[in-house]
This record gives sequence, structure tokens and C-alpha cells, in this order.
Amino acid sequence: MPEENIFNFVLFGATGDLAMRKILPALYAAHRDGKLQAGGRIVCVAIQDFSKESYLAWVDANAAPHVKGEGPGLSESPSWRDFVQRIDYVMLNATQPGDYARLAAQLLPNAITVFYLATTPKLFEAICANLGASDIDLSQARVVLEKPLGHDLRTSRAINDAVARVFEENQIYRIDHYLGKESVQNLLALRFANSLFEPLWSRDSIEHVQLTIAEQLGVEGRGEFYDGTGAMRDMVQNHLLQLLCMVAMEPPISMDADAIRDEKVRVLRALKPFTPQELETKAVRAQYASGAVNGKAVPGYHNEPGIAPESTTESFVALHAEINNWRWAGVPFFLRTGKRLAQRSAEIVITFRPIPHAILPMPGGGASANRMVIKLQPEESIQLHCLAKQPGDSMTVRPVVLDLSFEQAFRQKRAEAYERLLLDVIRGNLSLFVRRDEQEAAWRWVEPLLNYWESPQMLASPPRSYIAGSWGPTASSSMMMRAGASWPEDR
Amino acid sequence: MPEENIFNFVLFGATGDLAMRKILPALYAAHRDGKLQAGGRIVCVAIQDFSKESYLAWVDANAAPHVKGEGPGLSESPSWRDFVQRIDYVMLNATQPGDYARLAAQLLPNAITVFYLATTPKLFEAICANLGASDIDLSQARVVLEKPLGHDLRTSRAINDAVARVFEENQIYRIDHYLGKESVQNLLALRFANSLFEPLWSRDSIEHVQLTIAEQLGVEGRGEFYDGTGAMRDMVQNHLLQLLCMVAMEPPISMDADAIRDEKVRVLRALKPFTPQELETKAVRAQYASGAVNGKAVPGYHNEPGIAPESTTESFVALHAEINNWRWAGVPFFLRTGKRLAQRSAEIVITFRPIPHAILPMPGGGASANRMVIKLQPEESIQLHCLAKQPGDSMTVRPVVLDLSFEQAFRQKRAEAYERLLLDVIRGNLSLFVRRDEQEAAWRWVEPLLNYWESPQMLASPPRSYIAGSWGPTASSSMMMRAGASWPEDR
Repeated sequence: MPEENIFNFVLFGATGDLAMRKILPALYAAHRDGKLQAGGRIVCVAIQDFSKESYLAWVDANAAPHVKGEGPGLSESPSWRDFVQRIDYVMLNATQPGDYARLAAQLLPNAITVFYLATTPKLFEAICANLGASDIDLSQARVVLEKPLGHDLRTSRAINDAVARVFEENQIYRIDHYLGKESVQNLLALRFANSLFEPLWSRDSIEHVQLTIAEQLGVEGRGEFYDGTGAMRDMVQNHLLQLLCMVAMEPPISMDADAIRDEKVRVLRALKPFTPQELETKAVRAQYASGAVNGKAVPGYHNEPGIAPESTTESFVALHAEINNWRWAGVPFFLRTGKRLAQRSAEIVITFRPIPHAILPMPGGGASANRMVIKLQPEESIQLHCLAKQPGDSMTVRPVVLDLSFEQAFRQKRAEAYERLLLDVIRGNLSLFVRRDEQEAAWRWVEPLLNYWESPQMLASPPRSYIAGSWGPTASSSMMMRAGASWPEDR
Repeated sequence: MPEENIFNFVLFGATGDLAMRKILPALYAAHRDGKLQAGGRIVCVAIQDFSKESYLAWVDANAAPHVKGEGPGLSESPSWRDFVQRIDYVMLNATQPGDYARLAAQLLPNAITVFYLATTPKLFEAICANLGASDIDLSQARVVLEKPLGHDLRTSRAINDAVARVFEENQIYRIDHYLGKESVQNLLALRFANSLFEPLWSRDSIEHVQLTIAEQLGVEGRGEFYDGTGAMRDMVQNHLLQLLCMVAMEPPISMDADAIRDEKVRVLRALKPFTPQELETKAVRAQYASGAVNGKAVPGYHNEPGIAPESTTESFVALHAEINNWRWAGVPFFLRTGKRLAQRSAEIVITFRPIPHAILPMPGGGASANRMVIKLQPEESIQLHCLAKQPGDSMTVRPVVLDLSFEQAFRQKRAEAYERLLLDVIRGNLSLFVRRDEQEAAWRWVEPLLNYWESPQMLASPPRSYIAGSWGPTASSSMMMRAGASWPEDR
């Protein structure tokens, strides 16, 4: 049992999609596994006029199906019945200061209070201001913010300023659930608990790094939101750059949150700005055209509901990034993300340089045989690709794969990313959350590209297109070829 | 099917222990697996007056039980019956030139002829001279020599000179069966087919290397021979130094035999000579006292039959060697071998330096968690010891072991060392055989130690003793402690 104090977990947006699909299931999993302090309460807050009973019925119907590894009888199980005992419901209009007294009345005193803002970011400023003006004691409070945090550097700063009027930076938990992934954590453990990997972890041994977050989904009824956002803001500025930091960061001096975040922000600040020419040659954006995903015909981006007729919003981005420091200078970091791609897959592929001189017959010609592949979706794993001798009386080598996630060695259940992160909030561990300076450094790097794409000259020319169900436009493969590399599916 | 020509495999010492336990079983395994050219003959040669039939009965009784993976019905099996069809028997007194005409008459013409000298080395000179004087065509001949090749540099040279009067160096196959081990071959493949290991393979990343060949057996009725030899000549000068070369060699320019052997001899010549003081501090010799092995009481060395009453011959050696070159300067290579030790085990342990700065709680304190362990006996394997994150919501690392021998990936049968090496002789592949200059460089390094131990001053003081069934004398552990290291069983 962890040693944190009694807590109030206040969930704003408690009737929404995120609350149902991720947050309540993760809290339940932590409860079931005995990791959630016994006296802790969950105060669910939304604008709808639910009674506690009708809200719990809503939770039974909408959250329970998202609990992993449980059958349909979950809502009858003793641990679920026990879990929902923790839940209260407060009807509250986030913009009405007067409503916050009802919330204050529900909170345990002398407790850590977590405010999880699973609402639209438009409400962040009002919620924070109204909390600040209320009678609620915020000295032991923490606030959890979900993306998108702003549309650009300026609007991001405005949100951060508004939150900062009420909360100190060390009370603010900007969540990026990719950082809670087991395999991302294990990458840090492998790098910093062993002496085997760090000597290889630089331009001397690594040829390039590829980071992919590929979705099969389209805009899925969120056309209007997505059309105002695009892949760069939705995935690159936050998730992909955070993953890049985990690969590229220097060893931190400790596992303290700020020691880790200091190193991440150093990486982000070292990202090489795109030259005017590179805005064309090292960045690709595109929109999906109609096609088929998993054998099912799907419409093109412009035929999705909510998309503006002349929209140039990108549903796909591929970038050739570089990091201007001693460790990484000249090593390409290829980033890509997109909707309606061939597979749902998130992975980091670290390709090592080929051997300088082959004395054995090498399968695959001169290509490098050594790769570390960190898979985040659909399954998590870390694999090291090597060549080894095939047993027998000749010196023949064959590709083999080492399992560095040690699934076999550890038969325990792994924690889901959200469960891990929510427990970290309750325990006050900020190390897997994004600090304001990181967020702003990431905006600073992507903004020139966004400005270029949104410039009058570019708005006049439609983006490239790619067939839904493909791996993106051919320009993405061409960008790789210019760097002497290729995506896995082009090999 | 390999493309070698038809061959005569002439086995001198064909009634002896080595022929029965190793050579004929290995030839049979190669035959059964279709690797032995169909027309090849096996001509068994010994002084006993066997008919072909009575010799084959001897083989049935004495060699067949040593064939691995076959039941007692082997001698009735079709493939065994087919195999013994290849065998002829020639009665021959190796020292009688006149007897060699009978051998010549049995050989296929226009064939590769392998002379395997599985006899006492005392006969090598006579056999070679008599072969040279006979009518046998030696232009396509190869001669295989078993250890011990000499008692010191001088006598080793005498044998090599005698063989060289008849055979060219590239016809001479000095066998060291440890080089035929699958895991030793795989070590080379891992080092030179991947870019992951060579950057770690030096004093920068490796703390020390341990090479152990431990036997549970005593002198086993060969007391007189062993008492005139000792552990240094029996195991260190050949097997342990050959294994050391495989770990320490620079990447050869090709897999050609001489390219590999050039690199091995460079290692042997770089072995740092012992200073007068180091003869005491970096070398330990000992004899076993009575004790128990596997729960069975066994006598001490001096109570074994054939051992001289005042014998100071060592049954155990531990050395702290160093290699004076850029890659390895200052890295200890610990070698040890002994009879009547706690386990039968041959292994190479490469210990990497500890991480310079721990930011995660490390199991085992500051000790290095990273080791590559190459096991040769009793089973073969290569394992890499690492730390990885334990799945769950805390950053806890645990020791884990990676299987670099990929037993699971390769479900094929591995070749036994002798089978591999005999096929290499027939194919004319010298790369796993010891060249004369290697052998002489090894003698040059061990001779000062032997001379010291055999000096009048040392002969007057008995060697240390260790209890049979232990891991050797405490002086062996002390030698390690002085270097800041320890044997695995002392950890």
C-alpha cells in the first residue's frame, strides 16, 4: 500500500468520453489491485442533472465495459460494488462561481485534492479561477490537464498563465499518456540501469531513429474539432516530441521529476529549426482520400462530416528532425503520424549503423541488422534485432530477435498507462508529466512549420493526398530516400 | 552435401580411448546427417592383430555407446550398418617402416587423405617420417595432431619440426576441441556480424574476463601421465589460452584461416609476462587433498595411483593475465582450471563495468549487473545478464537474462565439437585449428611460470592444497580480491 494521504479525486467532465473510457476504468483497476488508499473519494463533476444513483447507473453502462480483463458481470462483482462506494456526484456549471460551494461541501478535509480537468480546454481558465475564488483549500491540491493545451505558443501561454494564477507549477500535471506506457518506462530502465546501452546511444552507433504513431481511425465524428487542429497539433507537438525526448535525453542526475524534465527540455531546445528550404524537403503533410481500411471502404477527409470544403488541415505529417548537440548531431529523427493509415501502430525504431566490414556472409546485403524496436501500440514490447550463428557445422548467421521487455520473466500484470499516471498524481510524482517549459519549447519548434503551412501562399495550394489504408503519401517515402533511409514497410 | 572430394580418413590409434569415445562417434554422426561424402573411407590403424570383423565388433562394443541421442539398438540400425561399411582395419606397428605398405594398399587413389594421429605424441615423429618414406602420395594429405604437443617450447618445436619435415604447415591440423564448440563459434558471429557488441568490447566497457575449465574428475588411472604434465600444460597452455584469444582478438580481415590465426597470435604475443613478484601474486597452483565430490569420498592427489611421493605437480592453476595492447591494457583476464573441483563446468564470463552513476535503486548494490556468460560445459549457451524494469506502477528494476544462443529460435540439432572439426579437416578449413606460431607463443608465455615452479627453491616447498570438491585453494580467491574481483561462487 502506498503511503499517500487520504485524497479527493475530483473529476471534471465526469460524464464525458475520456472519463468513461480511460479515467474511471483506470481508477477501478488501481482500486481492485489495492493501490488506491482506502479512504480516498472520487468526486465526479459535470453539468448534467444526475442523482448519485442515476450517475452510477451511467458509469455501470458506460465505464465498466472499458475495464480490461473483466467480463460483462463486472458491475455485480464485489470489488466494483466496493469501488463505486467511493463515488459521489456533484452537478456543477463550471463557469458559475456559485456552484463551487456544492463541490467544496463534498470534499474530505485535510486531504490531497486532485482536480482532473477532463473537459474542453476552453473551460480550464474558468475552472481554475472559480476554484481559486472558492472556499476550497488548494494548498494540497493538484490539477491534471489534458491536451490540447493551446493552438500555438501564444494560446498555450494564455492557458498556462490562467492556471498559474491559481496553482504553482509543481501542482500542475500535464498528462501525456504515452509517457505512462510500460515500454517507454522500460526504455529508461534499460538505458540507465545498464552499462551496455549508453555507449551505443549516440551518433557513433545509431544511424537513425523513427517514431511512428499510426491510426486506422478517421476523424470519427469529431470533424469540426479535428479540422481546427490537425495532426501536427494533435500528435506531433505533444506525443511524438515527448517520445523523442525519452530516446534522446542525456542521463538525468536523478529520477526526480525536475531532473528528468530538465533533460527533456534540453532536447527540445536543441531541435534544429527548419530552414526555409527544409520546410519543403524535410516536412510532409497530407490529407487522406477515400480508400479502404481493413477491407472496409471509407470516405476521404473532405467527405467527413464537419470538415470545411477548402480545408488544408493535415491528417498526416512526416518530419525529418535533427538534434543539434554533441550526442545526436547529424542523426535523423524521423517522425510521422496520421489517420486512416494501414495499421494501428505506435513504435520507436532505433536503427544502429551497419558493421563497417563484413567478414561473414550477411543476410540482407549491407543493410544494418541491428535495431531496437519499442512498440507502444497495439501491444507493448521492446525487441533487439541481431544476427546470431545458426547452429551447425557452417558459419552461417541468421536474424534473431531478443525480447527486452522480458514478458516471459515477468508474468505479472503490467499497469495501463492511465492507471500508472493517475497513481503518480495521487502520490505527487511529477516525473512523467510535462513541464510548462517543455510544452512551450515544443511549440516553439513546430510553430514555424504551422505558420508556413498556414501562410497565404500555402493555403492556396491543397496539401498532398494519400489513399485511406495506405502508409501515407509517396512524398513521405521520398523524404526518407533523400536521407538514405526508408520506413519499415518500404524495406 | 558438401563438395569435398572423396577421402581416406586414416585413424592412427584406432583401438584407443579417444577413437572410441570421440572420433568414431563424431564420424558416425556426420555420416548419419548426410554430411560425409558418400565415397569416403575410414581406415583404422592400430598395432593389435584384429581382423576387420573382430575390429568392427570392438567398435560396436566400445564406440557405439558414445553416440549421442541413440539407444542401445544402434549397432543394429541401418545407418550404423551403412557407416561401418566404410571402415577397414590395418594392423600396423607405427615405428616399422615396412608396415606402411599395407596401409598404402588400402587407400583410395586421387583422394584427400586425412591422417588423424590419436596416439601418444611420442609416435608423431615416427609416423610422419614413415609416411614420408612410404609410397603414399602426401600431396593431398592432411595430418591431425592431438595434444599434448610437447612439454615445453623446446620439445614442442622438436615435434613441429619433425612433422614439418613431411607436411607443409597448411597441411597440419592441430586440434583443440574447445574451438569447435557451438557457443565459441557463436561468440565470433555475435561480435563480428553485429555492430552492437564491438563498441563495448574493450577496456572502456569491460571490467574483467573470467575463463574457467573445472573438472570433477581426478587423474582417473592416468596418474603417471598427469603427474608428468600438470594443469598448466594440460589445460592452460592450450585450451584456456585459445579461448582467451577468441574473446580478445581484433576483428580479422576475413574468415580465412590465416586471417583469424594472425589475430589470435597477436593476442598471445601481447600477453604481459609475469614479473618476478607477479609469479607469486598473480599465479596460484595447488594440489587436491582428500575430500568429497558429488557426495562421494575421494582420495587426495598424493594417494592416487601413479603419483610420485614428492610430486609438486599442480592439479589446479589460477592466473591473473593481462594483455598489453590498446584494447585490453589493464583489464584482468582471470584463468583457472583444476581437477576435483565442485562442478564440471567450462565457461567464459565477461563482466562489464558498472554504470557510473545510479539514478534507479540498483539490486546488488554497486556491483555490475551486466555480464555475458558463454557456457561450454556441461551445456552450451550464451547469456547476457541485464537489468530491466519490472512491469507495474513503480520504477523497480530486476535482473533478467537474455538468451543469445537462441535455443528457441533455432530448433535444429547443433553439431558436436568433434564432428564440426573433423568435417573441417575433410573440407580443408584450417580456421579452427592452431597454427604453429600460436602454439609456440603460448608456450613462450607459460614457460617462465613453469620454470619458476620447477626451480630448486620451489621444488623444496610443497604447493598449496585444496579440498577435493571445493573450488580450489583460498589463494585463488585472494588473488581475485587483490584485483577487486571475485569468482562467481564467492559472490
